[in-house]
Parts: sequence; structure tokens; C-alpha cells
Amino acid sequence: MIEPVVVMLGRGRVPVDTPLLRADDLGVLRGDGVFETMHVRGGRPWLLDEHLARMVNSAARLELPLPERSVLRELAETALRGWPADQEGALRLVCTRGPEWGGPATVFATLAPIRDATRLARAQGLTVATATLGFPVAVREGAPWLLGGVKALSYAVNMACQRWAAQQGLDDVLWVSTDGYALEAPTSTLCWLRDETLSTVPADQTGVLPGTTARWLLDHAADLGCRATEQLVQPEELTAADGVWLVSSVRGVAAVRELDGVALKPSPLTADLQRLAGHPI
Amino acid sequence: MIEPVVVMLGRGRVPVDTPLLRADDLGVLRGDGVFETMHVRGGRPWLLDEHLARMVNSAARLELPLPERSVLRELAETALRGWPADQEGALRLVCTRGPEWGGPATVFATLAPIRDATRLARAQGLTVATATLGFPVAVREGAPWLLGGVKALSYAVNMACQRWAAQQGLDDVLWVSTDGYALEAPTSTLCWLRDETLSTVPADQTGVLPGTTARWLLDHAADLGCRATEQLVQPEELTAADGVWLVSSVRGVAAVRELDGVALKPSPLTADLQRLAGHPI
Repeated sequence: MIEPVVVMLGRGRVPVDTPLLRADDLGVLRGDGVFETMHVRGGRPWLLDEHLARMVNSAARLELPLPERSVLRELAETALRGWPADQEGALRLVCTRGPEWGGPATVFATLAPIRDATRLARAQGLTVATATLGFPVAVREGAPWLLGGVKALSYAVNMACQRWAAQQGLDDVLWVSTDGYALEAPTSTLCWLRDETLSTVPADQTGVLPGTTARWLLDHAADLGCRATEQLVQPEELTAADGVWLVSSVRGVAAVRELDGVALKPSPLTADLQRLAGHPI
Repeated sequence: MIEPVVVMLGRGRVPVDTPLLRADDLGVLRGDGVFETMHVRGGRPWLLDEHLARMVNSAARLELPLPERSVLRELAETALRGWPADQEGALRLVCTRGPEWGGPATVFATLAPIRDATRLARAQGLTVATATLGFPVAVREGAPWLLGGVKALSYAVNMACQRWAAQQGLDDVLWVSTDGYALEAPTSTLCWLRDETLSTVPADQTGVLPGTTARWLLDHAADLGCRATEQLVQPEELTAADGVWLVSSVRGVAAVRELDGVALKPSPLTADLQRLAGHPI
């Protein structure tokens, strides 16, 4: 079993169990920081530029000072050094706001192997239940302080939703708005196929996180003979779609095989999308 | 200037700039942990039992293992040792979920002096703007996965709201629901007076954090010749109230002197409530 790697800005590689963050770091006390997670294949992070761009945007929205991209790239390179080319990995970049009582932000990278459950999700698909996120679909568009589209270190609700799913013997949750639209999952983006059109939820109108992997699939949908678009969708429409997927950087393309107890028919496009995304199955 | 104190479970007192948390602690990566903050006066934490009870409840809601209360009390005692009786303080207890890759949770206490801005808020009151929290008022009651009433380490939105207020030259935000009810502030509880009745927002129906200081004020309202109740309120009603306050453990009782640009008349009850809560002015 390959060991996780931790690299801290200013210190280089450190053992995984090294304490890095002060008690008063606002990244700890307030979940006040930003992060990105990338898939590593062939020893390289996939879509690094896109993830860095999203991290820069998250930091700007939080008015959080972020190191230059070149510094973050170097941090990633240091973590990747010696990582076996045949070993999948999850590379995370994190930047906190720093100590409440003054001092520098904590900036670090971690690189770890993929969990078995993640690989299994690609191969077998996911059982999913819808759950309200509490918001009307468009409310975050006019309320930037709600941090729609920002990837911050405040995932307590995301984690609680996944525990809630697990309690019911399910793999994941699909968040829906109070006015009946599907939004996203706690750690992945919704994509679906209907009438040979691959769709995802528009981030601008809804406050969902703009998915890097979903974006890549939509941008390359023509390679699979599909159109691509962003639109709103209701869960009932998903059960009649020609394919529904939860898509994320590390898990890749995972088919939803059951939604709210309704079995969804397997989509012939799943294998094509997985090849397009390039995660090992 | 008195120095902040940090105490870590298993290590005792450590210098403030000591790194305590691993890079893979889910308290860092996911804001997945619980905390409480108490006011220290006369060298003792105020309402310690009530705060511990709320912390236990938060942890239970997150299915987070929390040390026994006696352990948390001892942690607090260690932090308080030698703290001057004439020095106000903010005592924080924190417990994370622990490392993603296995290992113990991080449990620590911090104790720090009060900020000047906090004392000023008691003396001069607050200018406040309403801002939507995005939720209909009752949605969290039926959706426990949204963590209504839980004090988790995921305060990125709370902090963003306070930055948003500051950008407009204001002191704080009052969250309102999408259906027009006042909820709470990012780090304090709403109280108001009307018809000699001191009110706060019912936590059970709304998912706001049940305020320990607000509870104490309501429980002792009779000492001031007031009735006490929990009820919903709309911001327009607040501008016509006989007093509006944002109440929290450390800031204590701060009068709202301006709400959405409307000056609220000073309430004769402010001084009484502040005496009742016992924070120095």
C-alpha cells in the first residue's frame, strides 16, 4: 500500500502525521479557506489549470490571499515526485486564511491513493436519494454572501448528507432545490443524457460548483456524437433520461443506477464517458 | 497585552504558534468538527454547563465522537489556570473528526483576550443589514442533514456575511428567510422587546442555533419585569420594537441601533440586559 504524501509551503515534504496547522488558524476554527482536489493518472494531475482557475476564483470570492499559481504548481510537483505512474491518486491543494491572532496562512498539498469504494462506484454505479439543500434554485445568484460556486473548507453539511445516505444503505445524495430542481451532489456534479444531449446544471444561475470534469465532458460531447448544454432539470425527468451520472475529479464518471428507489436503466454512454474522462475502471 | 493560551488534549499547554492539526484532519479538510465559545469573567467560564450540553448535542448530530464532559472541563481548567480575574476572555473548545487516513481527533481549548471592537459593540450598539440565508424559515426542521442548530467548524458563509456587512460600513448581518422572517446573525442570536415581552426566534422550528446567552436572558426576564417567549418575527416588526439586540457569549448584549438604514430608538432595557448578562461595558 502506497503511503499518502504531505507537502507544506515553506517546509517541503513532511511525514503524514506531522501537525501543520495552528489552533487559531481560521481554516480550522471557521472552515475559512479554499481547496481543490484533482485526479492523478500517469503521474500527472488531470485538468490542473482548470482546478487552479477555480481555486483562484474561490479565493477571490472569499477575499482570501492565495499564493501565485506557480507556487501552487510547484507544491503539486513536489507532492507528485516519485509517485508511481501506474498508481491513481487524489491530489489536494489547500490554502487557509491563516491564524486569527496573526501569522501566515497554511498552504499545503496532499496526495493519496484512491479508495476501493471510489473504484467500485465507477464499475457498479451509485444508489442515490434526493434530499433538499433548503434553497430555492436561484437564490444564491443574487446573494453572493452565500458563497454559491465557491469551494471552501466548510463541508460539514456535505459530509452530513453523505452520512445520511449511508444510514439508508445508499451511496450518495442528489441535492434538490425547494422549488423542485436537481442541483448537484455533496462532492460531485450532475450530468444526464436526453435526446442525444449531454447536460449539466448551470452554475451561474444556481450556485452549484462549476464542475471541472463535467465541463470537460460537455466540451468533448461531440466526440461521442452528442450535443451539450446546461439546463435545469427535475428529478422526475432524470428517471426518464437515457443516462444519469455523478461526475467528480477523483471518482470520475459514476452512473446513477437507482434514484429514490427507482432503478435507472444502464446507459450505453457510461463506458464512453468513462473513456473520455480517462479514469481507470 | 495578555497572550492567548492554547491547550491540547494529551499535550497540555503549548505556545500559541505550535502546529496542532495534521493536514488530513477532517476538521481542516471538511470543517467537520464542533466548537463552543464561552465568556470568561472573574477567571471562570460563564454558562459552561450549557455550552457543554450544546457541544454534546452538536457532536451527536454529526455522529462525532466527543470526549467526556469531565475531559472537556479539565481542558478548560488548564487553559484558565493563571488567567487574571480582572481580565475578560473568550474560551473556545474544539473537537474535530480527526485524520482522514486514521488517527485520533484533535481536541483543544484556546483562551484569548476580548477585542476592542467587541467592547465597543456593547457600548455603542451595532449597525446591521438584513441578508437572506437562502432558506424558507421551516425547511431545516424537516431536513436534519442541513445541520440546523449544530455548531460545526464550517463557518465560511458566516464569515463571508460579516465581510459583506463590513464592505458596506456596517457592523453585522441579520439573516432572514426567503419567506420573510428574521432568523439569527452569523455569530449571535436575535432578541427583541415588544409589549414588555422579551422574545427570541424558536430554534426548533427554524434551525437557528439555540443561543445560550439568549436562553439565559429569557429565563431571567422576570427579574426585569418582562415576560419571555419564542416567536417568529419579520424585520419590519423589529423596526417598531422597543428594543432589538444581537446576543452572543463573548460580545454579550449588543443593541441594534440601525437596521437596514433605519435608526432604532435606544431601549432603556439595554443596560438592564447587559447587567443581567454580566459582561463588562
